[in-house]
Amino acid sequence: MEFERRALRPNDVAIKITYAGICHSDLHTARNDWGGTRYPVIPGHEIVGTVTAIGDEVTRHRVGDTVAVGCMVDSCMECDQCLEGWEVFCRKGCVQTYNSPDYHDHTITKGGYTDHIVVRDHFCCKVPAGMDESKVAPLLCAGITTYSPLRQYNVGPNTKMAVVGLGGLGHMGVKLGAALGAHVTMITTTPSKGEDARALGAHDVIISTDPEQMAAAATRFDFILNTIPVSHEIDGYLNLLGRSGRMVIVGALTPMPGFTGFNIIWWNRAVGGSAIGGIPETQEMLDFCAAKGIYPDVEFIRMNQVNEAYERLLKNDVRYRFVIDMSHGL
Amino acid sequence: MEFERRALRPNDVAIKITYAGICHSDLHTARNDWGGTRYPVIPGHEIVGTVTAIGDEVTRHRVGDTVAVGCMVDSCMECDQCLEGWEVFCRKGCVQTYNSPDYHDHTITKGGYTDHIVVRDHFCCKVPAGMDESKVAPLLCAGITTYSPLRQYNVGPNTKMAVVGLGGLGHMGVKLGAALGAHVTMITTTPSKGEDARALGAHDVIISTDPEQMAAAATRFDFILNTIPVSHEIDGYLNLLGRSGRMVIVGALTPMPGFTGFNIIWWNRAVGGSAIGGIPETQEMLDFCAAKGIYPDVEFIRMNQVNEAYERLLKNDVRYRFVIDMSHGL
Repeated sequence: MEFERRALRPNDVAIKITYAGICHSDLHTARNDWGGTRYPVIPGHEIVGTVTAIGDEVTRHRVGDTVAVGCMVDSCMECDQCLEGWEVFCRKGCVQTYNSPDYHDHTITKGGYTDHIVVRDHFCCKVPAGMDESKVAPLLCAGITTYSPLRQYNVGPNTKMAVVGLGGLGHMGVKLGAALGAHVTMITTTPSKGEDARALGAHDVIISTDPEQMAAAATRFDFILNTIPVSHEIDGYLNLLGRSGRMVIVGALTPMPGFTGFNIIWWNRAVGGSAIGGIPETQEMLDFCAAKGIYPDVEFIRMNQVNEAYERLLKNDVRYRFVIDMSHGL
Repeated sequence: MEFERRALRPNDVAIKITYAGICHSDLHTARNDWGGTRYPVIPGHEIVGTVTAIGDEVTRHRVGDTVAVGCMVDSCMECDQCLEGWEVFCRKGCVQTYNSPDYHDHTITKGGYTDHIVVRDHFCCKVPAGMDESKVAPLLCAGITTYSPLRQYNVGPNTKMAVVGLGGLGHMGVKLGAALGAHVTMITTTPSKGEDARALGAHDVIISTDPEQMAAAATRFDFILNTIPVSHEIDGYLNLLGRSGRMVIVGALTPMPGFTGFNIIWWNRAVGGSAIGGIPETQEMLDFCAAKGIYPDVEFIRMNQVNEAYERLLKNDVRYRFVIDMSHGL
């Protein structure tokens, strides 16, 4: 379909999109799995492109810059959360990149599966010079969603860390954890995924369906990044945490089954959650990935392959993120 | 009943007990509510007394000292947990003050509802000079169980803190939180308990059965100390936590009902647990309470009133801890 992006406001940046990642949320929204989809929906919140025009008041970006846009395109910029760099938790409610009403003209935002987008300057991140822009897009959701909890919980060289689930988020968790210096263990049901994780930088593998391996790993970890995207029992994972160990859930938004109070009281453990990240931390993550040479593993498709990609996504048949290549046009 | 305490080992301290607090765990163990009670059981793990003799190698305590004993009386003192001051999580399994096999003679330990006890020196804390020893006993369980999570989570002058549940633990949580400089809100189902909490030092009260008050308090707190001793829904409390807010459960050891993943993912919240505390932190807590003049509110009874006290405990009819007065004998 064709539609017009809005005329530039003074603080807007116009971007010619070159690459857009495909996130599970895109599929859920396109198919109205969560309700609330306002058709026609144009998904896509992992966006990389080139600045083609800037509003009168824009000073942070210039025409020709390579920039990136993630899950948000506006927020109030006045509340405590925005002022502290956590625009995702804006008290007014941030404007999401697609399927979200614009503050000003009340149109429904349209995402990255398009050739152009217009975004408030603050919500454009700079793609650091020298980065391979073709692989940057998935960092804007899968990257920041895994980087933020690692930073919040001070994951670093002394951390014994595990990642549960090896998909778009999990594979970034392995790479980012290893790059931060942590000792990274992949926890998976599937031995072949264990080998895949080692290739991504994991130092060890636990097969979670093997009770002996799970028992032997009791109290082993300081931190577990749990990327399982659906409801699941957590007691078995909690038992892997040592004293003051923390498990952070980034995928499962849904009602979770119960857990045993003893499993957090004993060993002073905690189970937390984390949602994307703010814009300053997103920029920090891009700079970190540029400095360390970290990219997601991606499979490029063209726009006319999106439906096919969705079907493969449902079968977890991608390592580990589809990216729509629009660098030569749609 | 009469029985002999063991002859002093080189690192043992013999104590004439003057006061012993009554904890819910005592009642549960006496009645075998959790299974595993080895009769005859002598409960009591909130103990204060006077040193009457010391073993040849004891240097930390002297005859005549006022000392206190909590939930543990021995641990391996060689594992990572013991060496780091977290004897409660000893890899060998700490020896609990009652109903637990002694490492050496394999007899079952007997607790504080007696006139004497013999304890390894490391597990005797010093009662600071000037403290009213009659009120110290409940600090050894209710005190450390609430002090430890406040310290683990850095509760201090900038913390907006809430306490859920006003019993033996909750009333110490209010006093300790206020003494650490936090702004303390009592969350209770009962308006009269709200008033009681204000008298203990709480600055504000939320009646949790009032949906309007709960809705108005959304995202208000940095930290919630949850002292509810039984399984309970946590989603309603999670919603009261602000960004990176933490709720710590200290009472509910049992299977908990499910929670909604979104409620921790959004706002980067976490729910944790905490178990008693180690010996160094217990001494720190006693020193803190001495410096700040913090004592539990207690009701003194004599030994022949224990059964009556248990019945009242079941009805929560105590403000807020029974203490058996043995200072003039049994």
